[in-house]
This record gives sequence, C-alpha cells and structure tokens, in this order.
Amino acid sequence: MENFQLHILGAGSAIPTKQFSQPSQLLSLRDKLFMIDCGEGAQNQLRRFGASLSRLNHIFISHLHGDHCFGLIGLLSTLDMQGRTADLTIHSHEDLKALLSPLLSYFCKGISYRIKFEPFNPKDNLVIYEDKSLTVETIPLKHKIPTAGFLFREKDKLRHIIREKIDFYKIPIREIPLIKQGADFYSEEMGELIPNSQLTLPPTPSKSYAYCSDTLCTDSIIPLIERVDCLFHEATFLNQHLSRAKSTFHSTARQVALLAEKASVGKLIIGHYSARYDDVRLLLDEAKSIFPKTYLAHDGAHFII
Amino acid sequence: MENFQLHILGAGSAIPTKQFSQPSQLLSLRDKLFMIDCGEGAQNQLRRFGASLSRLNHIFISHLHGDHCFGLIGLLSTLDMQGRTADLTIHSHEDLKALLSPLLSYFCKGISYRIKFEPFNPKDNLVIYEDKSLTVETIPLKHKIPTAGFLFREKDKLRHIIREKIDFYKIPIREIPLIKQGADFYSEEMGELIPNSQLTLPPTPSKSYAYCSDTLCTDSIIPLIERVDCLFHEATFLNQHLSRAKSTFHSTARQVALLAEKASVGKLIIGHYSARYDDVRLLLDEAKSIFPKTYLAHDGAHFII
Repeated sequence: MENFQLHILGAGSAIPTKQFSQPSQLLSLRDKLFMIDCGEGAQNQLRRFGASLSRLNHIFISHLHGDHCFGLIGLLSTLDMQGRTADLTIHSHEDLKALLSPLLSYFCKGISYRIKFEPFNPKDNLVIYEDKSLTVETIPLKHKIPTAGFLFREKDKLRHIIREKIDFYKIPIREIPLIKQGADFYSEEMGELIPNSQLTLPPTPSKSYAYCSDTLCTDSIIPLIERVDCLFHEATFLNQHLSRAKSTFHSTARQVALLAEKASVGKLIIGHYSARYDDVRLLLDEAKSIFPKTYLAHDGAHFII
Repeated sequence: MENFQLHILGAGSAIPTKQFSQPSQLLSLRDKLFMIDCGEGAQNQLRRFGASLSRLNHIFISHLHGDHCFGLIGLLSTLDMQGRTADLTIHSHEDLKALLSPLLSYFCKGISYRIKFEPFNPKDNLVIYEDKSLTVETIPLKHKIPTAGFLFREKDKLRHIIREKIDFYKIPIREIPLIKQGADFYSEEMGELIPNSQLTLPPTPSKSYAYCSDTLCTDSIIPLIERVDCLFHEATFLNQHLSRAKSTFHSTARQVALLAEKASVGKLIIGHYSARYDDVRLLLDEAKSIFPKTYLAHDGAHFII
C-alpha cells in the first residue's frame, strides 16, 4: 500500500548524536501528512527530506519530555513566516498549551494561522482523530511521565468493481458507489439479481501503524497493537542493560522483539537508541534473533507500511 | 593566532535550508569556548563538529528572534542530562529569563547546574564580560527589535623574554613577570640598568573578532569595529534586493563589503543568507568585488581569527 508511508525524521533519543536526531516521524497517507513527536531540528530534517509542509495539519506528541517536543516552537514559527493560513492541530498532553503559548505570543506575534491544542489523557485508549479514511487512537504507555503511543488505522476500503461487469450488465453510474460498498445489483433487462461477489473484487487491505515511544515494554498494549502491519517501538537499550531500561522506563531490543512476536505484527521498526551505542546494529541483531522482520530506524529512513 | 578560532555552527537565517542551519557560532580562545547565538539544532551541530561542552561557560544572544535562540532549551536540557555542575551564564536581552524559566522548571526539574542570566541593554556599548585574557563588548545594532553585536577583544599580551638574556644577565625568576610586562632590569653584578628593549621581543599581537547580526548596515558601528582582525557581518540579501533588506532591517553583501573597507578590518565573513538564494556564491562575488578578503560562512566552517 504505497499510499501509506513512514518517514523517520529523527531516530535517536534524548541526547542527539552525530548519527541520530531527536525523535520525530512523518506519516504520509495519500494527500495528508501526520507528524508524530517533534524533537529539536525536526523542521530541518523535514526540509532535508523534501517534505511539503502544506500537507501537514495534525501533530501528535506522545509525551512532554523535551526530546519529543523541543522542535515545535521552531516549526510553528517557520510556518508563520511562510504565511501559512490553514489551521494546525496539536494533539498532546494538556500541559503543552501552557508551555507553548507564551513562546508563541512573544516569537510569533500576529501569527498567520490558528493553532488548535487538542489535549488527550494519555491514560485512556481513545480515538483522538478521525477522517474519511483513517482513525488515530491513543495507546496508554508506561513511562516516567504520562505518555501515549498512537495507532493509525486505515478504515475499511471500498471493493473494486470489475469494469467489464459495468458494461456487460449496463450498470448505471449512480449504482456504482453502492456496489463498491457491497450491494448486489438488480438488472431490469435480465430480471435477475447479480450478487456483489460477481461484480467486485475484495478491497485493498486496510493498513495500520502503531507508534510506541517512550515506554517500559509491556504486554498490556498487545490487545491494541495485535496484527498491526507495522509497529514502531522504542528499543533504547540492549538486554544486557535491562536494569537500566527498567529504572529509566525504557525497553530493550529483546523485550520488544518478544512483544512483536506475541502481538503477531507484520514488521517491527526499532529506534530511540541510547547515545551509548555507537553501533546500533547490535540492537538489530538482538531483536532479529527473535523477530526476523525487524528493521532499524535511522534519520531519513523511509518505510512502506 | 591559532588559539583564537571561530566555528560556524549555523550560517543560515530565520528559515533553515538544506544547506544552512539557524545562526550559531562558537568562539574558541585557548581553553575557553564562547557561544554566540543559539538557533535550533545548535547542539546537534556542536556534536557533529566534535566540540566539548565542558569548556562552554558563556553564551551570548544577540536578540530575541527565534532563529537566534530556539536552540537554547535543548542545549541547556542536554547539559542537565549530562550532569553538568559548572555555572553557565547567558548574556542576553532581559526578556529571555522570563521566556526560558518556565521551560526550565518543567523540562529540567532539579537541574544539575546553575544558569545565570546576565541581561544587557542592547542600546549601550558596554563591556559585558571580562577575564584575564579577553573582554566582550556589546555593539548596538539596528534591527526590528533590540539587538546587539559582540566585540571579542584579546587583552594586551606579555612581551616575550629572550631566554639567552636571562642566563647572560643572571635574571632572578621573580623579576621575569615584571620584565614581561615591560620593566627594565638592574644588574647588581654589572651595576647597570638594562633597558627592557634589550631583554624582550614584542608580544604576540592581540586579536579581535566582531559579530554583527541581525542589522541594517550602519556606519555608526565603525568606531567600534575599526581594525578588528575579523568581522562577521550578516549579508542576508544581494544588493538587487536592497529595498527588501531595508524593510526587514537586514544588510546586503555590497553594503557590508563597503563597511568592511571603511572600517579597515582584517577580513570579512558573511552569513545569515536569505533562504531565497540557492547559490550563496553570488553574495560572495558581490562582496569580494569591493572587499577581496571576504569569506563565506557555512555550517561547519572554521576560521583562524
């Protein structure tokens, strides 16, 4: 499903390294862009990877640690300088509004567009965004501060009508949307009801993407992420640093691979690497030995969901 | 004077481009680092260029437009995570403290070091920093909001004593510091006053660096920057966009080159390029045609003052 793509803007964690910027991702679904987290420099990465900001109308912030939101003020300010007029909605913990508002008042006087703060409670699993083709749900996570992951799920799609059948049965155009939705067709000419299964092919499967960062690795999220096509999960540490992972409310590559296996996800992308690892392939090797369809996030990486 | 070096962290202006990050520079003088402005991503650039943050104790912010200070909170937060204990002083317009303090309270709870805000009035020409080898003065500039440049000036250095003369005249160690400062020496043995000029060579020349950004190009600063060894001056526009430069309180490459010539500076570095120019060599060509010793700033550039 090439219309559903993930761009990694920053694959690192709190302390940026030469290789990895602070966390930020861009999810592209047809004509829309969704940003997930916005670490410092996210706007620079956006530009490097050539993304058009006019398609970005919703930003989702998992939690209010600086590495997940320090890039917001710069991005919002640039959009203002560029004369954006469309509303921009930021979905986050409620505290963000009070933190950002004084900065916006000072640095973006007379801002050219409206910023809508849509707070959510990270403890709940709720649909926080919906449009005609997608829902976004929160995934309650277990971090030092209130944190939620996000589940992006395409809605069921329409069946594919078979062009030759339209001609053969002389199906009027007005009937086509109904047939795509699964209706049968009554042919006046033949005096016959044609079952939908003879007129259509199954729809393109709907895809789903789950983003889980930052968090202790927890089976409690399995009911929410089960069978997603793609799971991004933080793997800050190697399992040899498990006690450090626990004390800082992070996960190890081994834990995350076991979780991916239990949840039967299509593929696993790991990231949010601790700055201590010069070679993150160690994390990949650890995860792949358990869950072979594991991939490494890196700044600029691009995945088809 | 290789001990006095300039590292360009970001050579761009308000809107970062693929090539140029927001403004930030690092001045290295012997064992000390001084940061000038701190646009978004300055800490990432620091890391890319391998600078050690433990030597950084003073940050100078020219003015409170976002592109000159959005990188502060990320940098301060990282220093906290790294367990810094030494004080860090930020020299800026007085408003910065009120803007940063709520962010520091939220994102850097129980911060490991002390941040000292040292406000200055950008309208004045004052010494705002001094140590045994350096002074830093503000240079009042003409921008949309209160803005100051900074003049870094090495203090006069000691004369070089000639080793052979110490032996020949049997100069006691306690006399050496005085002779380096210019004193003559009275030789008891010879009953003779040896003039300083026979004992020493002139000191290594003291160097100076002036940073002027953002500003209308103005001759009013000439008395302050006259004969500096190195002048960094913003050249946001080509002279063909002079009216745009004036209306936005910025300078053109041609104006800046004329200023450098009038002020008889040693060399000129230009930067803070408008994002409209894909090829900034046009700016260089314009300046060099007037002032040949002009150089382009770029992210990662490194100059000996």
